[in-house]
Amino acid sequence: MSGNSPAAHARLAQLRQRCIWFTGLPGAGKSTISALLQQRLHAADRRCYVLDGDVVRQGLSRDLGFSAADRAENNRRVAEVARLMVDAGLIVLVSMISPFRTERHRARTLFAPGEFVEVFVDTPLAECERRDPKGLYARARRGELRNMTGIDSAYEAPLQPDIHLHPHLASAETCVETILDHLLA
Amino acid sequence: MSGNSPAAHARLAQLRQRCIWFTGLPGAGKSTISALLQQRLHAADRRCYVLDGDVVRQGLSRDLGFSAADRAENNRRVAEVARLMVDAGLIVLVSMISPFRTERHRARTLFAPGEFVEVFVDTPLAECERRDPKGLYARARRGELRNMTGIDSAYEAPLQPDIHLHPHLASAETCVETILDHLLA
Repeated sequence: MSGNSPAAHARLAQLRQRCIWFTGLPGAGKSTISALLQQRLHAADRRCYVLDGDVVRQGLSRDLGFSAADRAENNRRVAEVARLMVDAGLIVLVSMISPFRTERHRARTLFAPGEFVEVFVDTPLAECERRDPKGLYARARRGELRNMTGIDSAYEAPLQPDIHLHPHLASAETCVETILDHLLA
Repeated sequence: MSGNSPAAHARLAQLRQRCIWFTGLPGAGKSTISALLQQRLHAADRRCYVLDGDVVRQGLSRDLGFSAADRAENNRRVAEVARLMVDAGLIVLVSMISPFRTERHRARTLFAPGEFVEVFVDTPLAECERRDPKGLYARARRGELRNMTGIDSAYEAPLQPDIHLHPHLASAETCVETILDHLLA
């Protein structure tokens, strides 16, 4: 079913609350795809919210840095906030590098079965670095930025994501259709 | 206007997102009143959520204790979560002792003018201790519990709350009517 059809809209409007967790390298396209998905859900009158890793770092997690321990704690807090928001009836779109497998698994354990949807935004490092929307890769390569995921900090790719996207091979619109197909399946 | 009338329901349904922050001693009636307000808002089809201090301590703030510094950090986190939830369009009912004036003021600064409503649930200590719904006062008096607000940890009453409730003189229903009158004014 096309996610754009009136029937799909009606079904999206009825979609139960859940956490859709976008993980991937910096510049992979997490924000773009989650924002587009939010538009589609809003267009169907389904309340949702993008919980953006960068925004959380300016507020709730502004006491944390980018060490492995601080990244794990940041991941924990975002997962707890997402859980509260799901409890409030929202569809939460978490958009965050979330590089560690263990921490993403911990996040999943906070939710009921099927309520946590891990979306791997699998853009290759070379392509992320070519895009470099915030200039972070360039700064990391010049040695001006430490603990940059993909450069000098590990990214542990999901082994069995619920949804596996390849944004370098498909448009953001197509990626969103893939997610909608999964949600409406 | 009675908060129960059809006209009031229609206006409650249209109410803008905001943070209604209940502060007061343990046992003052914060949870009872916020739960009743949530029922009224839900009955009017206005999405809202009770962000309960005890629940947050089991999740997001489970790494924190009850020292002054940890209480301040807990207050900060709850305020940040409330801000994100208000950003998501919810009416958030924070129900938390939140004993420090400075920290409640910090919470207010996260919101737009009028978006933060401080509700002082002003039940006298003697009455809270008489109720003692969780047996905490008894434990504190026996010396089994440290840092109990009202006993050996300070509670700084609001000087100019937006709403001042006296639950020992009025029913919880009447308190909720007072809040609804304020919201619909």
